[in-house]
Amino acid sequence: MNPTACILVIGNEILSGRTQDANVQFLARRLGQLGISLREVRVIPDVSETIVGTIVELRARYDHLLTTGGIGPTHDDITSACVAEAFGVPWEIHPDSFAKLEAYMAPGSFNAARQRMAMLPRGATPIDNPVSVAPGYSIGNVHVMAGVPRIMRAMFENLAPSLAGGRPVVSLAWHADGMLEGAIAEGLEAIQRRMPAVEIGSYPYERPDRRGVSLVSKGIDADAVAEAGVAVRALIAELGYTPVQGEPPSAQPGAAAGTAGS
Amino acid sequence: MNPTACILVIGNEILSGRTQDANVQFLARRLGQLGISLREVRVIPDVSETIVGTIVELRARYDHLLTTGGIGPTHDDITSACVAEAFGVPWEIHPDSFAKLEAYMAPGSFNAARQRMAMLPRGATPIDNPVSVAPGYSIGNVHVMAGVPRIMRAMFENLAPSLAGGRPVVSLAWHADGMLEGAIAEGLEAIQRRMPAVEIGSYPYERPDRRGVSLVSKGIDADAVAEAGVAVRALIAELGYTPVQGEPPSAQPGAAAGTAGS
Repeated sequence: MNPTACILVIGNEILSGRTQDANVQFLARRLGQLGISLREVRVIPDVSETIVGTIVELRARYDHLLTTGGIGPTHDDITSACVAEAFGVPWEIHPDSFAKLEAYMAPGSFNAARQRMAMLPRGATPIDNPVSVAPGYSIGNVHVMAGVPRIMRAMFENLAPSLAGGRPVVSLAWHADGMLEGAIAEGLEAIQRRMPAVEIGSYPYERPDRRGVSLVSKGIDADAVAEAGVAVRALIAELGYTPVQGEPPSAQPGAAAGTAGS
Repeated sequence: MNPTACILVIGNEILSGRTQDANVQFLARRLGQLGISLREVRVIPDVSETIVGTIVELRARYDHLLTTGGIGPTHDDITSACVAEAFGVPWEIHPDSFAKLEAYMAPGSFNAARQRMAMLPRGATPIDNPVSVAPGYSIGNVHVMAGVPRIMRAMFENLAPSLAGGRPVVSLAWHADGMLEGAIAEGLEAIQRRMPAVEIGSYPYERPDRRGVSLVSKGIDADAVAEAGVAVRALIAELGYTPVQGEPPSAQPGAAAGTAGS
């Protein structure tokens, strides 16, 4: 079994709809590549009691808990104090991080708000931030990162080598224009029953110039995934559609904008 | 107190990173406009036990639980069977929905897979689907919608009039190019302390041609929000930056692509 993970997105701006999350998809893909199975994503508000309780709950349930958001210098950045509380340890100046931030800031500008970014839960290991110095950190199985996507990504790449991974997830897509889910459902279910170790998903797509269905086989056993792909391809052809390997062209993240048929 | 809500996104394709969620931001905004307070978002996989347990947990915790995904015709669409199990009721043909779908489908094509889309938990009230007929539904405080964004949006607009709302959330943004969070943090916190009924958030932005911080005051008391806006504006000016009302131009959803300063 691959290790499991959960992403905890901390931020009112996602729950109000002000901001579109831009971190989950990146992390989901990278975790899959590392052989870590992402099992859940939660988005919660900047409310201390909620953050503390959720961290306690989720870090017990999953091998890794990754958080994004709430580690900046303003009053609404309360993640780190909550992580410390969840672990029952002091939230205190981390001398090395303090020195790095002080050196980075313009003389006289390293005020109390900015010094908060050098405070970590006791026992945490900093994650370097090559963009703006203020660190993320790991404590136990909890990995705390910034919410700003460019910083989060840089932090994750610094964190990744220390994450114990498993076998990478392999996936294989076949699609066919004009195909409808309702036409292929029965045959697809038969393949899924025959190959329980492979996860077979059915995803309709709609582009300005085409619509159809993409069928994705996924798993950690590359041979089984390949075998499922052969079966999926044959099913598409048998039903009179033209199977094409891969996702449909011009598939953009988020572009699954609708379908009218099933 | 406004009614509370949680969004439950059901789908392996989000957790694998294959698909960028395109529903949460829409629902978050619409719920805010209706005076319903979105408190949590969860993304979970297409695993029966997980779906049932999560529905039981969340519908007890929030006034409304909205789900997206997993109500199509293929084997990986298991949401409805799980909702029925969570409510302890049969999952059965809904005659009116069956008749509508049968009339919509080409003669001879209304097969077993498609007939599953006419099965609802007993006691559910259908939500019309003007795009592809197969309905969503409400049962108790759980509102079940498609995952395809175009269909989900149409379903939500049909559902919205039946949701008991509260006072709409009002928000007011001021931003300033060149401003850094670390410079404004202390003054901002003082405003937040003075005005606990307003939620004041600080959001750095970075555009190709500008970077700065956006300060958002939000709440259901429009007068208090306006008063907070005046204080925020004054603070920005006092610190030597030029306050501009609204979000920074060219703010795109998801464009909070990074910031180097704090």
